[in-house]
Amino acid sequence: MRLSETTVAVVGLGLMGGSLAMALRGQCARLLGVARSGATARAALKAGVVDAVCSLEGAAREADLVVLATPVRHIVATIPGTAALMRPGSVLMDLGSTKVRVVEAMNSIPQESGVAAIGGHPMCGKEVGGLESADATLFRGATFVLTPTLRTTDEALRLARELVAAVGARAVVLEAAQHDRAVAVISHLPYLLASALVQTEAQASECDPITGRLAASGYRDTSRLAASQTEMMLDILLTNRQGVEEALDMFEAQLGRARALLADPEGLKEWMIDAQKRRRGMFQ
Amino acid sequence: MRLSETTVAVVGLGLMGGSLAMALRGQCARLLGVARSGATARAALKAGVVDAVCSLEGAAREADLVVLATPVRHIVATIPGTAALMRPGSVLMDLGSTKVRVVEAMNSIPQESGVAAIGGHPMCGKEVGGLESADATLFRGATFVLTPTLRTTDEALRLARELVAAVGARAVVLEAAQHDRAVAVISHLPYLLASALVQTEAQASECDPITGRLAASGYRDTSRLAASQTEMMLDILLTNRQGVEEALDMFEAQLGRARALLADPEGLKEWMIDAQKRRRGMFQ
Repeated sequence: MRLSETTVAVVGLGLMGGSLAMALRGQCARLLGVARSGATARAALKAGVVDAVCSLEGAAREADLVVLATPVRHIVATIPGTAALMRPGSVLMDLGSTKVRVVEAMNSIPQESGVAAIGGHPMCGKEVGGLESADATLFRGATFVLTPTLRTTDEALRLARELVAAVGARAVVLEAAQHDRAVAVISHLPYLLASALVQTEAQASECDPITGRLAASGYRDTSRLAASQTEMMLDILLTNRQGVEEALDMFEAQLGRARALLADPEGLKEWMIDAQKRRRGMFQ
Repeated sequence: MRLSETTVAVVGLGLMGGSLAMALRGQCARLLGVARSGATARAALKAGVVDAVCSLEGAAREADLVVLATPVRHIVATIPGTAALMRPGSVLMDLGSTKVRVVEAMNSIPQESGVAAIGGHPMCGKEVGGLESADATLFRGATFVLTPTLRTTDEALRLARELVAAVGARAVVLEAAQHDRAVAVISHLPYLLASALVQTEAQASECDPITGRLAASGYRDTSRLAASQTEMMLDILLTNRQGVEEALDMFEAQLGRARALLADPEGLKEWMIDAQKRRRGMFQ
């Protein structure tokens, strides 16, 4: 099954699903969209983001490839019922930001259904959500993690790789548990730091309102993720609690070290230079 | 003394001093520059950033307004000797990122010298330093804190306000202690969070190198300040230790609250929505 001959259904037309549909335009035979709200469905149709909108059931029955692009707990809850309606030989995929729970649900799809399934997580996003923020170029140059399941066939992996390449991303195949540990550190931890920073600013500004008024570009960037969609982020934190707690353990130890080093200028300088070198080498 | 009739000396031609000189071009009678390195002095002359380069002593003797734009501990150490060479009626100012220690040093300038002094801190910057990063528009739209001292005359405050307006910034007059408490929360804390996040990523990537490879725009922004100039940041942290420790106390309590709420989805959601609303309302 070539992507160009495939009917793709995107379930959830928010930032990620909407962007995926836009990026797949002209690269598959037909694009179906499933949206929670009628307004989003109408907007997607009107903007030509999809060829048709339908129910989840209709999409499951009709599509060769179904991509679940809703918050993670909804994806997990949706997998059994969706797979039960899909045709043998069709492929189920998702764009959820945590993968262990998704892969568990995909592993439970009855083998005799003949439905293949593979987890996916494109490493990109924006702090604003919704179809109105969707962007056909969102995935360009991004790493797109694929997590195989017990239901991943060679054909499903090939099709998933073709989809990743079609939207301009680079596929990286990982175990779900390895993925979840890594994103806890480089994605979920930064979100919690940003939110706790904003709560700290709020508390300090209650004592002295000048605090927030002095905020400039440094605060703006460090706190940006606190503006993320909370529905999506809540599901992420709740489905990766162990990874998040381990990342918090590591971070709190590092911050405690920084605090202790305030009494040791030479040691503090070394710690700062280490971080500076690593960060300057990271995004070139 | 009008700015347009003033000989201004900028001491330190890095990001802040260089940008100030560029922004003051054509708005004062003469611009003198003092640089630690001969290469920077030559580059500043060649690029027409200043009219002449000279020694700190020469600048102190000749200028009507001397602006110290070096790291804070250097500013503090430089104030007595510089003021001792300045003419009665001239004004000493600085661009240091912490103000209590600077104001203390300015308060100690002998009253009989007739030298006026006022602290300054423009709330803007970049994580890269040096004259090559300097930018005449850096101060545009920024808040520029002025901290009066025992040596601040009406005339000095007026000239400082004129300078702030001339570079396109908005003056806010604050007590030094109030300034230092506020910037500990919205500037120094974010720097430490970014650096501790990078150290956490480094530690996690030692166990599994995929961690850093999955970093995307969220990590990039949250960690950006870790790339800041360490010489400048070290001085900031060391001259505002109490403020930084109080900010760390508040932040650690907030992060501990987030961790506890991982077991309470409804409470976590509320905490996340609070932070989201506050952050979305902050930068419009």
